[in-house]
Parts: sequence; C-alpha cells; structure tokens
Amino acid sequence: MKVIYGVDVGGTFIKIGKFSLDGLINKYSIKTIISEDYHAIINQISNLIDETIEKDELVGIGIAIPGPCVEGVVLGCHNIKWGKVYLKEELEKKYPEVLIAVLNDANSACLGEWKYSDYSNYSNLVLITLGTGVGGGIVINNKLIEGIDGSTGELGHIRLIPFNGRKCTCGLEGCLESYTSIRGIVQTALEYKEGKLTTLNNYDTLTSKIIFDEAKNGDACSQKVVDTTCYFLAMGISNISNILNPDCVIIGGGVSLAGDYLLERVKYYFDKLVFYSIKSTKITLAKLHNDAGIYGSYYEVLNMMNE
Amino acid sequence: MKVIYGVDVGGTFIKIGKFSLDGLINKYSIKTIISEDYHAIINQISNLIDETIEKDELVGIGIAIPGPCVEGVVLGCHNIKWGKVYLKEELEKKYPEVLIAVLNDANSACLGEWKYSDYSNYSNLVLITLGTGVGGGIVINNKLIEGIDGSTGELGHIRLIPFNGRKCTCGLEGCLESYTSIRGIVQTALEYKEGKLTTLNNYDTLTSKIIFDEAKNGDACSQKVVDTTCYFLAMGISNISNILNPDCVIIGGGVSLAGDYLLERVKYYFDKLVFYSIKSTKITLAKLHNDAGIYGSYYEVLNMMNE
Repeated sequence: MKVIYGVDVGGTFIKIGKFSLDGLINKYSIKTIISEDYHAIINQISNLIDETIEKDELVGIGIAIPGPCVEGVVLGCHNIKWGKVYLKEELEKKYPEVLIAVLNDANSACLGEWKYSDYSNYSNLVLITLGTGVGGGIVINNKLIEGIDGSTGELGHIRLIPFNGRKCTCGLEGCLESYTSIRGIVQTALEYKEGKLTTLNNYDTLTSKIIFDEAKNGDACSQKVVDTTCYFLAMGISNISNILNPDCVIIGGGVSLAGDYLLERVKYYFDKLVFYSIKSTKITLAKLHNDAGIYGSYYEVLNMMNE
Repeated sequence: MKVIYGVDVGGTFIKIGKFSLDGLINKYSIKTIISEDYHAIINQISNLIDETIEKDELVGIGIAIPGPCVEGVVLGCHNIKWGKVYLKEELEKKYPEVLIAVLNDANSACLGEWKYSDYSNYSNLVLITLGTGVGGGIVINNKLIEGIDGSTGELGHIRLIPFNGRKCTCGLEGCLESYTSIRGIVQTALEYKEGKLTTLNNYDTLTSKIIFDEAKNGDACSQKVVDTTCYFLAMGISNISNILNPDCVIIGGGVSLAGDYLLERVKYYFDKLVFYSIKSTKITLAKLHNDAGIYGSYYEVLNMMNE
C-alpha cells in the first residue's frame, strides 16, 4: 500500500500520522529531542518510519515545524533550537524517491482543519490558534500563503493597544497573544482577582481551563476575565476580517476547547467591532485540534502529488 | 486599432483612460452625475466612449466603483447613491461583444500601482490609500482578492485602540482612518495646536498638506502631528504585515504626496512595531496616484483577455 507520513514537530512531542491515500492508518507520539543538531529530530522521524512502514511503499513525508518556513527551508526555530535548516533538501537526500513537504506548524494546522473538518468548501479562510502562544495560518484562493519571510499568520502579534500595552514574550507590547494566549488569560485573571471574592482563589495555580470552567459556573470575576479575553480576540479577528474579508475564521488551540461559551461571546463583540460591510465572514471552532498538524502535512503531500 | 477603456468612477469626477493594447492613448475627466438611477453614470461613460472611439474597435471596458463589488455586481455605494447594481450584466447588454470588468476602486488602484509602477515583480502586495478616507487593495499570488463581501482591504477600519478611541465616520471608534485620513490628520492638529505657539495658527483652514509642509519647515507642533500620524500608520501597516507578510506595502492617496518625509518616519516606527521575523516586507510610495484607477481597470480587462 502507498503511504504518506504526516509529521508535526512540537517543542514537547513529535506527532506522526501514518496515512494511506484514503486516510489515517495509525498515530504515534514521541518525545522531541531538542538539540542544535537538527539530525536528532530527523533521525527520530526516520527511525519511526523504519519501524512502522512494514511492507508499505513510502511515497511522501510532510513535516510541520514550529518556525517560519519558505520553500522547504526552515528559517529558524527557537522552540527546538534550530537555526536555518534546508530540511526539504536533507530529507530528499535521505529519501530520494519520496515527495517531501515542509511547512510551518500553524499553517499545517490550518490546512488540516480546512480539509478534514467541515470547512473544505471555503476557499478563503484563517485559522487562529490560542495556546501557549497565538498563531495562525491563512488560505487564499484555495492555497496556503507563506509570506516573503515565511511569516504569514503571525496573528498573535497583531498589536491591539498603541501605547503602554501589556508586555509580550516577543519583546513587543499590546500584542493579541499577551491577552488571549493561555498565559495572557491567566495574567488577566491574576490582575482581576486581586482583592476580590472569587472561586479562582480556591486554586494554587490557574489555567485558562479553570477560568473558563469557573466562569461557566457563575463566578463573576472569571466571567469578567472571559469577557476581556473575548473582546480582545474579537478585536483581532475583526482586524483580520477588515483586511481579508475571508469566508471563515476558525478558532483553534487549547483555549478553543472552551467551546460555544467562548465562541458566542467572541461573535457578540465581533459584530460590534467589524466594519459594516463585512457581513458574511463566519467565526467557528476548530475540530481536529492536536491532530490538525499531522492531517495538514499529509494534505500538503497529497497536494504535491496532484500538481 | 483595438482599444480598452479604463474607467474610475469617483464621487466628484469620472476619470476615463482610452488605452490601446500597448498603453494609454488619452485621458478624460467628467463631473460625476450622482443619482439613485445608476443609468446616469452608465450613460456618461458610454457617451464619452461614443465621442472618442472614432474608428477604433472597442474590445473591453473596465470600471472601478467606490464600493464593494463581487463578481461584477456592485453591492452598494453611498458616495454615488447606488444600491445593488448588476453592473457587469448591464454593460454586457449594452456592449454584447465587449469584455467587461467591474471592480472596487481601491482594488483597481492597487492593480494599477502594481502593474504600471515599478512593483510588478512582486506577487504579494498591499496598497493603502490615505485620502478623505483610508482604503486599500490586496494582491496575493498575483491575483487581486475581493473577499466574500467584496470588502477585502477595508484597511481604514483596522481598529488601533480597544476602548475610547476617536470616533470614525463609519460609526466605529479607534479606526486607522480616524487618525491617518486627511480629516484625521487635521483633527490631530486641531487637538495639538490648542493653546500652542505654532505656524499652523496662520491658517484659517488646515489641510494635511499644510501640516506636512509646516513640519518640514520646522514647526514643532506640526512635527508632533506628523509623528503621531506616522506612528498610527506604522501600527496599521505592521498589523497588516504580521498577518500577510507581503513583499511590499505601497502607501498611496493624497497624504502620500508628503513623500519621503512621511515614508521615513513610517518605516522608523514600522521597524519598532512589527514582529521580529517580518524582515523583508518593503514599504514604498505610490507613483501613479490619481491615474492608478484607470490603469488598474484597464489591466483587469487585459487580464481577462489572457484567461
């Protein structure tokens, strides 16, 4: 059987899907070896392929990397300590007969959600992922766009506050990420709960899940945190929509597991903040979540086969 | 000779270019008849074509409209009092053998600047126009994008301030337009000069040109106005760039006539505000200005001929 491996390299785990041309066969997860020598991760992936390929015929490998990628070259990736890596070239040396796709992880997730959730009828869409950081991917005219520096979709660094905004981990201020990432939401909670009577005080360590759960349970302080988060997220999404007027903006990442409770508030503020002529852009939730990346890098290889 | 008319309908004038397949032959400008009956403008255009076509063979008409357009349909246009108009269909009835292109005026200007300035080697670019309003157009993978509501490039309504921003003419607050349109710049000047010793006090009525000229002449208050304008513009452009990481952002519209004086300050702030991985996005000035629209609608017809 012809098989494709869809790989999603993260800072903690490498997720790998073994796919037939018809769909997923098996999923694997291995702990990422973080090292300045990129061969470590390449070896982890190729070892797993060797162990699991059996009698199948390898036709493609798609790899998603948590850093900017342009035409098969990883420009750098702090998370896994990589500098510039000619990853497609490296893999083509190792697998000369095999199609190799290299793409950014948020872009890959975008492709995955687009093609393997219910969104494949859209030709222009944006995925925004709210996790440890905030990122995203953009499809225009049915094609993922990479940007001249491979940095399309740095949605977390849309600036929402001109002066004296909250410090972001990127070194800038007032970024969307600093308010809507897991860390950002917790920081808002820590600020709001100061001196307040709130069920958030029952926890030693806060997470965005706790905050959303307590809000759903009726805690006023948590509800205020959710409200602020949704307002800033809606502001970011309305800015994206005023620029691109896409068919759809999909909210993904760990925070999106808050579900309709998040979505309804974001839509409420979006309607208030977006330009009046933007009427048809839909806001929805991601469906594949952690699997989006392996599906997206698989899809990118399928795409190459059809070109 | 085969000729194409490139038309740019504005709220004050209709600009019309008569083009051969090789380029511009002649330019015309007629005062716009504003009426709920869109036939008035269609007749103005067709009368001018009749008067100037001579023995040439009409092969195409491209029309730019100051409102959202999707697939040949104008969705509405306050400026010229139009509701929804099936403009392409109307023109095809009148000119059955002729290629008809209908597009938004900012999109058309974007195409014009892209193809007939020095920017045609870029495949991803954004035009932002600073005039009475602030608008723009976006080219991705060598194609203009329209958006699901024909509202791509509503760059003037990127929100820069989350709460208590300056009122915008669109009804929202804190929009880029409310700080960087001609009106916005004058408003900033009126606020800043209050009680100050400034050469701006020598004028009964301020314009953005006066403000930029006085800033160039060394007036401190005008320089502060220019600085604020450039900061907000750079924030808008950096938000666009964090989303799209385009090859180039072109600044056009009347305000852009301030030239390098404007451009250098915008670049200075852009470098401070944009995400660190956005390294190659260039910021430049428009070159065709008022003629961009007729060139763009001409180009759209040429494009259709090649499809």
